[in-house]
Amino acid sequence: MNKKELTNLILEKKSFLCVGLDSDIDKLPTHITAMADPQFEFNKAIFDATIDYTPVYKINIAFYEALGVKGWISLEKTVDYIRATGKKVFLIADAKRGDIGNTSKQYARAFFDKELSGLDFDAVTVAPYMGIDSVSPFLEYPEKWAILLALTSNKGADDFQMIRTQEEMFVFEHVLKASSTWGNAENLMYVIGATRAEMLKTVRQYVPDHFLLIPGVGAQGGSLEEVMRFGLNSEVGLLVNASRSIIFVSSAKDFDIKAREEAEKMKLEMASNLLKAGIK
Amino acid sequence: MNKKELTNLILEKKSFLCVGLDSDIDKLPTHITAMADPQFEFNKAIFDATIDYTPVYKINIAFYEALGVKGWISLEKTVDYIRATGKKVFLIADAKRGDIGNTSKQYARAFFDKELSGLDFDAVTVAPYMGIDSVSPFLEYPEKWAILLALTSNKGADDFQMIRTQEEMFVFEHVLKASSTWGNAENLMYVIGATRAEMLKTVRQYVPDHFLLIPGVGAQGGSLEEVMRFGLNSEVGLLVNASRSIIFVSSAKDFDIKAREEAEKMKLEMASNLLKAGIK
Repeated sequence: MNKKELTNLILEKKSFLCVGLDSDIDKLPTHITAMADPQFEFNKAIFDATIDYTPVYKINIAFYEALGVKGWISLEKTVDYIRATGKKVFLIADAKRGDIGNTSKQYARAFFDKELSGLDFDAVTVAPYMGIDSVSPFLEYPEKWAILLALTSNKGADDFQMIRTQEEMFVFEHVLKASSTWGNAENLMYVIGATRAEMLKTVRQYVPDHFLLIPGVGAQGGSLEEVMRFGLNSEVGLLVNASRSIIFVSSAKDFDIKAREEAEKMKLEMASNLLKAGIK
Repeated sequence: MNKKELTNLILEKKSFLCVGLDSDIDKLPTHITAMADPQFEFNKAIFDATIDYTPVYKINIAFYEALGVKGWISLEKTVDYIRATGKKVFLIADAKRGDIGNTSKQYARAFFDKELSGLDFDAVTVAPYMGIDSVSPFLEYPEKWAILLALTSNKGADDFQMIRTQEEMFVFEHVLKASSTWGNAENLMYVIGATRAEMLKTVRQYVPDHFLLIPGVGAQGGSLEEVMRFGLNSEVGLLVNASRSIIFVSSAKDFDIKAREEAEKMKLEMASNLLKAGIK
């Protein structure tokens, strides 16, 4: 999916919500865990319940990988199901991959090359520490995206991302500055944690046109209003992720209805703020 | 496997070679690709041929993940086969994982928790960018190891790892300094590229007792002699990886014999240098 199509999808739905399928096997409703493929059944129910309110889903690969081969089967079935619905949706593999060139090339195939791997995501999250050749292989697929970690929402973000350098910059600013020359706003996005919304002003100086994937609203305490104030651009330019606060809001039989209600709430807040900002 | 056992295994074999199973499906010998599970058959042959000369194998997860479910089956079969031989061997998942705490916990389960995932590696490579909570979950398994990226062997290492900070340090030095307080020499190792052997002196100032995993000897041009001069400690403290230069040295029917010869050459050079260094 290209940038124009993604923006249009967001404007159609009046939502830039990204629902995170962090489908932890230990947290699924008990009537779901009794089924043959609990992660797939859970994802299917969540997808069907929330698709009206969200243009983007992010599948957190770790929660499938933890189950080995079985988890990879659930992952593949989930992606196949979503694609088979025929609904327009932007699909992110949240995998935080990155290695030397010849190895990153294999990770790109894993998430983008359906014929080889069985998976056809639109985007994959990538860790920047190994530099240009660890990121470039993800940028070579037309209409596919790398989403580079820049400033994350967790406590450990302070350890290295916030180190001050001799150029009077934070390390995460170097990541933004250097990487924005490796790709462009059509194939590269950035992860920027909502818990540091005030930093979005700085981020936008480096990457005014790029989409930003924002985790940390909801369970981790970030504010949607602040994220929009500092992060919105004229083409929206934001994907705000919510995982646990939507998918695990209830573990009762009607967990999917409850998840839908949470997604609708977020969509309405987004729609209202987009209208206020004059973006339509 | 704990540090003492690993050191003893190295001293028994007089080798600190790590053979990298980067078993690229496009590079396997044609008589192997004709088989039902080429990656597994290739790994089995390489393992059987090289086990006399190497205490450590490193499986590059990307090359399996690229094949989706099929690749994860080959990966699991490879690990099962190696464990079933009953031979003492230190097994590294080269996965470069790392995410917020609750997600890194799942990646740790993927590679360490055999009951859940089917895999029981001794160690997994971890990317440091997200800081302490992205690394800690890998340190909580007794006798298992996290191998943290510090200074890598690729071109892109210059982009962020070699940035100078306001504390007159390189970023990779911050990684060594901070992370050495998160774990210790019994559960934490570091990736240090052989293409920067002169940097090993600096590295050893921060982590004198830790094992270092050294890629870049062979195909990438690093020198074993220099690595040993600057990196060796009294308990060896080095694992030197060779992947392509061993496993793909030949694609003929006797590729395994040729791989064995390359492994033997490296082992002999290591044994000779260990003797010179008075380590036995």
